[in-house]
Amino acid sequence: MAEQKENKDTLGLNVKKDENFSEWYTQVIQKADLADYSAVSGCIVFKPNSYSIWEKIKSIVDERLKEMGVKNAYFPLFIPEKLLMKEAKHMEGFSPEVAWVTESGSKLDERLAVRPTSETIMYDSYSRWIRSWRDLPLKINQWNNVVRWEFKHAVPFLRTREFLWNEGHTVFATKEESEKEAKEILDMYYDVLQDYLALYGIKGKKTENEKFAGAEYTTAIELLMPNGRAIQGPDAHVDGQNFAKAFDIKYLDKDGKLQYAWQNTWAITTRMIGVLIAVHGDDRGAVLPPKIAPVQAVIVPILFEKTKDTVLKKAREIKESLKDFSVLFDDRDECTSGWKFNEWEMKGVPLRIEVGPRDLEKNQVVLVRRDNGQKEFADIKGLNKKVSEVLDRIQNDMFEKSKSMTLKNTVDAADMKGLKKAIGSGKMADAVWCKSAECEAAVKEKTEGAKIICIPLEEPKKKGKCVCCGKSSDTHVLIAKSY
Amino acid sequence: MAEQKENKDTLGLNVKKDENFSEWYTQVIQKADLADYSAVSGCIVFKPNSYSIWEKIKSIVDERLKEMGVKNAYFPLFIPEKLLMKEAKHMEGFSPEVAWVTESGSKLDERLAVRPTSETIMYDSYSRWIRSWRDLPLKINQWNNVVRWEFKHAVPFLRTREFLWNEGHTVFATKEESEKEAKEILDMYYDVLQDYLALYGIKGKKTENEKFAGAEYTTAIELLMPNGRAIQGPDAHVDGQNFAKAFDIKYLDKDGKLQYAWQNTWAITTRMIGVLIAVHGDDRGAVLPPKIAPVQAVIVPILFEKTKDTVLKKAREIKESLKDFSVLFDDRDECTSGWKFNEWEMKGVPLRIEVGPRDLEKNQVVLVRRDNGQKEFADIKGLNKKVSEVLDRIQNDMFEKSKSMTLKNTVDAADMKGLKKAIGSGKMADAVWCKSAECEAAVKEKTEGAKIICIPLEEPKKKGKCVCCGKSSDTHVLIAKSY
Repeated sequence: MAEQKENKDTLGLNVKKDENFSEWYTQVIQKADLADYSAVSGCIVFKPNSYSIWEKIKSIVDERLKEMGVKNAYFPLFIPEKLLMKEAKHMEGFSPEVAWVTESGSKLDERLAVRPTSETIMYDSYSRWIRSWRDLPLKINQWNNVVRWEFKHAVPFLRTREFLWNEGHTVFATKEESEKEAKEILDMYYDVLQDYLALYGIKGKKTENEKFAGAEYTTAIELLMPNGRAIQGPDAHVDGQNFAKAFDIKYLDKDGKLQYAWQNTWAITTRMIGVLIAVHGDDRGAVLPPKIAPVQAVIVPILFEKTKDTVLKKAREIKESLKDFSVLFDDRDECTSGWKFNEWEMKGVPLRIEVGPRDLEKNQVVLVRRDNGQKEFADIKGLNKKVSEVLDRIQNDMFEKSKSMTLKNTVDAADMKGLKKAIGSGKMADAVWCKSAECEAAVKEKTEGAKIICIPLEEPKKKGKCVCCGKSSDTHVLIAKSY
Repeated sequence: MAEQKENKDTLGLNVKKDENFSEWYTQVIQKADLADYSAVSGCIVFKPNSYSIWEKIKSIVDERLKEMGVKNAYFPLFIPEKLLMKEAKHMEGFSPEVAWVTESGSKLDERLAVRPTSETIMYDSYSRWIRSWRDLPLKINQWNNVVRWEFKHAVPFLRTREFLWNEGHTVFATKEESEKEAKEILDMYYDVLQDYLALYGIKGKKTENEKFAGAEYTTAIELLMPNGRAIQGPDAHVDGQNFAKAFDIKYLDKDGKLQYAWQNTWAITTRMIGVLIAVHGDDRGAVLPPKIAPVQAVIVPILFEKTKDTVLKKAREIKESLKDFSVLFDDRDECTSGWKFNEWEMKGVPLRIEVGPRDLEKNQVVLVRRDNGQKEFADIKGLNKKVSEVLDRIQNDMFEKSKSMTLKNTVDAADMKGLKKAIGSGKMADAVWCKSAECEAAVKEKTEGAKIICIPLEEPKKKGKCVCCGKSSDTHVLIAKSY
């Protein structure tokens, strides 16, 4: 028992989320067994507990994409330097962060970039594949790894030098079609975040200054972290004809005229695992939404010497009866029930089902919700339906909590004083902006690093005064410090 | 029509498989739209038609692995040079083919290898994760990309500098457990090859000389290509304690003693897509086995002006009724039926369903098998069941054909003269070997490059004379030129 006691102490978190968010985050990642640091600086190991979340996200998004007619492919990891340089702004945006392969057995003739993103290697192919309007739309996606050799401090999932994502690269005959698709993709990501990850996000457009390197404009879903910092989630970039011109992607239209094509790119990354943990987690560890949790419910038998066999037998039957869910039956002999409770709470399993001898006499079990600790008795008869209801409730409540956390921490700022106060107290500000680059830069400077996160797409166009210069404008923006 | 005519001519292959296999292979890969060359020498683009085959293979293998208790994870792409050097033989085997990252913004302190395989980066973590017998077995797998900067001529799928695979890395407390798992894994791969890819393989053990760099011994499934060359398929390496000692992977056993662990590694790669195409394809293009084909059947309506609407309507109904299969309804207006036949034959769709006006009057359609060209009429009533039967038959026949091709091209060789004759006529030889490295080297030299492919696991131990030195032995081996 001495060994168990010791483990139990080290299992728990020794910091509160409210008090030191970043230390709390680091501890949860480690103690919920989600990730580990690796021998490569800035790169992490995605352990099975986090990789299985990524597999869920992948399979949901992938199914949606296939319904939309997108096909998966796989392009090379490496990009010859010349190719990466073809679109000037794109190159400018990415080159400082590129990891270069320069030698194998001997020195290579040309440096090869480890892809920071795949526009350039893909569009080189596209320029050969696309000939006529019959080849359009071309909708290709890949699920892969990318590398951006950043020098900022790495944070597991949220900022790592290598990460996993999908990158969709689609080509259309007209601007209208491309803009329609970008909107549909952003909506799809938004739905996945809301319906599966139980995360409230804000759809917005990036400013010129913050848009993707090479895009005409960038739309994205922004999320608010518990520490008041905004973080960018999935995005959809409308590239216009920028890459088409750089890579000579042209098609013969129905009238036999050569036209440049219109392109989009869009992505969701493993960063979302980090956001999921950060937003939903609490002082006992991770809290996973049922629809994304690799294990949705854990059955813990309460064992006493006399009743052990009966309880184990019954608990096993209950596990068999819950066929609709991913249920883990924790029948380990070497741990106490208390140890098991703590472990599965730390790992974020949405529902605990306690099967004890006294409850069994009444043909009932105890259900304990991970998200709010609520306990209730449930009849074994009809348990499958009951579990389904409780998991749905957890899923909904977690989304509502994420939404109210975001709304509560977003405050109006009428002028610079108000803005500074909002940022200073760890909030996100909703403010009016005159759309000038000068005021955008001034916001950054005067708030010591907060920036315009986005122009929300669904914000009502209400006249007001620019938070910086006071000029009248109907453009609302969100301003916050960010990851 | 002029344009269509022209396309039709360029669509077909202009070489026969029997006459020039390698040119035939290259043309099928291109014309069935499976892969494309890329701007990076030796690396290919996996186009949707081939990537979707890989997705199928992945999902089948992944499901089996999960049933066996293996968990997926993801480790960094890069391996610091020092780590790669930790196991001497492993380093020796891989270092000539490593692509090195040496700079990002500036020169890196230490070269980073782009993983040629992940033993070293994974076992560095394992050495920290494994403490006691309770942590074992540890069964982790990843699906990822690897890079081996070979200088041999690249062949799409069969030999490319970057390829995709799964790499399983498992750790056990005892040698017995590790050997049992390696056998189960090899059997699983064998079943997937037989049941899904319709490929006949031979389970074998590699010679000391040919084993995986760092393993105690290597088992693998070997396949015979139509040109008489052998190719290695999925493998399972029993690493013994080699890596455990190099990486200090130790566990406290139940008696409190520190023990080195026992390890396995195993993999299946995108090379199998190439083998699939090479073995099953014919002079009309690719031929895909129904269980792995992304599209299992294509419906082609036979359109005449008067009956067009009726036929399209009925064909659509038939598509709806075939819910159990992946069916494509080719209702394109701009192509003739003949064009469609050729296109889907080239792409290897297992079954064509022709819906024409005269057959519709008799409530029937025409089914055409891709593998052997057999046509038959089938009643629309009960078509779902009929299609299921025909697809099963295709799947079985394709496997039997692959098996008989392999057996027909494997001949006994009693001595060096017989061996040279077998190799010279493009066959694989079954011969007795005395187990000496000298005779193994002599075989290579005297046959101008054929080598001992494997010691088949299921070959009866029958005494005979070494094909090289004539010494008596009961070890049978397969000898062939290889990829």
